[in-house]
Amino acid sequence: MTTPDEPGTQPAPPASGPSRRRFLGGAALGAAGLVGGAAAGYGIRATQDRPAADTDSGEPSSVAGAVSVDKAAAQVDFYGERQAGITTPQQERLMFASLDVTTTDADELQRLLGRWAAMAARFTQGKPVSDSPGKPLAPPFDTGEAEDLGAYSLTVTVGFGASLFDDRFGLAGKLPAALKPLGTVPGDTTMRENFTGGDLCIQACADDPQVVFHAVRNMVRAARGTATLRWSQLGFGRASATGAGQTTPRNLMGFKDGTNNIHADDTAAVQEFVWVGDETDQQWMNGGSYLVARKIRMEIESWDTDDLEDQEKIFGREKSSGAPLTGGEEFTAIDFNRTGDDGEPVIDINSHVRLSSPEANGGVRLLRRGYNYTDGQDPDTGKLAAGLFFICYQRDPHAQFKVVQARLGSTDLLNEYIAHIGGGVWACPPGVTAAGDWFGKRLFTENS
Amino acid sequence: MTTPDEPGTQPAPPASGPSRRRFLGGAALGAAGLVGGAAAGYGIRATQDRPAADTDSGEPSSVAGAVSVDKAAAQVDFYGERQAGITTPQQERLMFASLDVTTTDADELQRLLGRWAAMAARFTQGKPVSDSPGKPLAPPFDTGEAEDLGAYSLTVTVGFGASLFDDRFGLAGKLPAALKPLGTVPGDTTMRENFTGGDLCIQACADDPQVVFHAVRNMVRAARGTATLRWSQLGFGRASATGAGQTTPRNLMGFKDGTNNIHADDTAAVQEFVWVGDETDQQWMNGGSYLVARKIRMEIESWDTDDLEDQEKIFGREKSSGAPLTGGEEFTAIDFNRTGDDGEPVIDINSHVRLSSPEANGGVRLLRRGYNYTDGQDPDTGKLAAGLFFICYQRDPHAQFKVVQARLGSTDLLNEYIAHIGGGVWACPPGVTAAGDWFGKRLFTENS
Repeated sequence: MTTPDEPGTQPAPPASGPSRRRFLGGAALGAAGLVGGAAAGYGIRATQDRPAADTDSGEPSSVAGAVSVDKAAAQVDFYGERQAGITTPQQERLMFASLDVTTTDADELQRLLGRWAAMAARFTQGKPVSDSPGKPLAPPFDTGEAEDLGAYSLTVTVGFGASLFDDRFGLAGKLPAALKPLGTVPGDTTMRENFTGGDLCIQACADDPQVVFHAVRNMVRAARGTATLRWSQLGFGRASATGAGQTTPRNLMGFKDGTNNIHADDTAAVQEFVWVGDETDQQWMNGGSYLVARKIRMEIESWDTDDLEDQEKIFGREKSSGAPLTGGEEFTAIDFNRTGDDGEPVIDINSHVRLSSPEANGGVRLLRRGYNYTDGQDPDTGKLAAGLFFICYQRDPHAQFKVVQARLGSTDLLNEYIAHIGGGVWACPPGVTAAGDWFGKRLFTENS
Repeated sequence: MTTPDEPGTQPAPPASGPSRRRFLGGAALGAAGLVGGAAAGYGIRATQDRPAADTDSGEPSSVAGAVSVDKAAAQVDFYGERQAGITTPQQERLMFASLDVTTTDADELQRLLGRWAAMAARFTQGKPVSDSPGKPLAPPFDTGEAEDLGAYSLTVTVGFGASLFDDRFGLAGKLPAALKPLGTVPGDTTMRENFTGGDLCIQACADDPQVVFHAVRNMVRAARGTATLRWSQLGFGRASATGAGQTTPRNLMGFKDGTNNIHADDTAAVQEFVWVGDETDQQWMNGGSYLVARKIRMEIESWDTDDLEDQEKIFGREKSSGAPLTGGEEFTAIDFNRTGDDGEPVIDINSHVRLSSPEANGGVRLLRRGYNYTDGQDPDTGKLAAGLFFICYQRDPHAQFKVVQARLGSTDLLNEYIAHIGGGVWACPPGVTAAGDWFGKRLFTENS
């Protein structure tokens, strides 16, 4: 069953055996067959309508507001100093997966991270797991549903949860302070175990849902025997914009979401708020970023009976235009100090836009990257199970997400209509730089 | 709260009251404000990359294999002798909803069907429920999340389940023979109540998921007090092709799905197998079609461990090319009689392609219109909850779907890897012809 030339393609590699190559120490597992394919395409970027983030500096190349020409062919480079999918202009579809590691063998875990890197390098070029379909009497290397579809600007971003840093893999001393559990956050009492946490996460984003599904499915498949799927989420529509050329999408409450988001081409803001730098207590995360995800259920039916005026008061913005209630248009600066004839602030003291603003949070900002979702109906309530799968990236969740969420979770007017029901925090290490490298290599190979 | 000019926009119209207009008898509820808007755009078709079905004849206009220019602006005419969304070239996204009627007032039910028609006419032009956002102290007329998005070739197709024809609305004598319950169908023992049946169905298809979500959400909202959501399903990717210019998509098993589907421009086949004609025992269905939906869960993890050779034997086709195992390429005719060196049929006697073929079913064909889906993880098993949301249209489900499914449900090799877990049968009446008309008007207004 084991074909040494295609180790990354094994759906269920034997835990040990003569044909199993050693991954560590340069023998570069996941390499051989797979990496040959990946290397052939390395550095070649097909026609694309969205520029890849410049992975060398954290500064994306300038974003042209160009009309999409061929979304299917568009590619984002996988290899680079930083992981793609963070400052990359946000694609239209998401599949997010959380996995728990079942092996207790650190080498095996690293082999998985190498397989994943080799697979992601190929998927982001629109290629299947292997150029070969496989042998007739063995499972196909690739599950096949994305054949002929193209890369659709796929990015694959991998992160490590705090739970990975226990005594299983000798990583206890390598938990960054920034990844330590957030502790009690107001509003978190509604979190559900079955949508929360996980040792590893995969964020797959692309402009086609079948492409993101294919990437996650095959990566989960490649994890068999090493890690298992804990929970997953499919997202659609962008719920926030990260590129200067992108218009601001709307969330399922009908409001523009992401007007004041960090734009990927705002180099200074990206450096200050998104990328981990030399200051980190764990140098393996230097050049990485922390992902916080929250599955935020919206009480759609209740929201839909709320008055327009109240909806706008809750957000602090006009629903249609996105302009702040203090006037102007969408991107007009908000005048938080303005009072109305009644002497009350025009932007309510507990409005979402005020509580989440940098002004209310000591200047703190987040790079948001959320998606709308619907899971059909809640079997318990019969209500629409829909909302926002909120994702944000930052340098330090304790200093950023937690600060903002503590405020929102306490007094946000929006809380009447939402509930945080899942999510987690993951450390996304620096990028995979070339064939043979793997996600988080420094975590496993350097002394802290 | 009630604004007589915008009756279709009322999220929760009062069950009775002085401001409520009478719908029947020409006072055309749902008309006034809404229909003014709809009528203004009636007949005007914006630039479109997919032709609308020719609703006068059941013959779609010829399908150009043209490159998509502006998917957002593309529109499919809503008004016509036949409902769009049946022979319309298949769009990329689906939201399907099943509702149960809660009122026992036949007039109120018709008012809902009028509101829906007026809303669908606007949504399919990329317009919100109303040109007005609504009054400040009332809920917004439209939920807003599709503002600025465009129509994305949206079609809205409505159907009636057999359960509607009980004694609630005086429709017991109008149940078409073709809509009578299918009875026992092999393989249906795995159907789940919470994904099955419903008095009404809405099939919304478009090239954008937020557009289909918006359409269904607002229609369900407009049903408040009259009908409630029973179950819903979001689908992605096309799982079968209906237009001659369309390439064959793949299902989540990685196989091309729909190679032998009826093409929308095959006028003879469409007339023979899709549209109900004069022969019907219920003339209100003349010009309509019967929708059968099946939520088919795939055992993804098991499938992914199956050998390529076995997978191809199950389907009777090559996985990558889609060519029949008897040779040629995707569209080569299948030689069901060919035997191999061992004397056995090359196309297995229980292969999916054989059992579902017209040759095995007395020449019967179906117009398939399925979508892939994933609901994340099954909470009971931890496995990926994904598969095919199969939709097909036909003249008579007893003579078509049931015949084929009886064969498939009994001995299809694929049954090891799939389970039918939901679905239903709905009668989709002829189209809404103009402002003031409503879904199924003849059902309610003509004597049988």
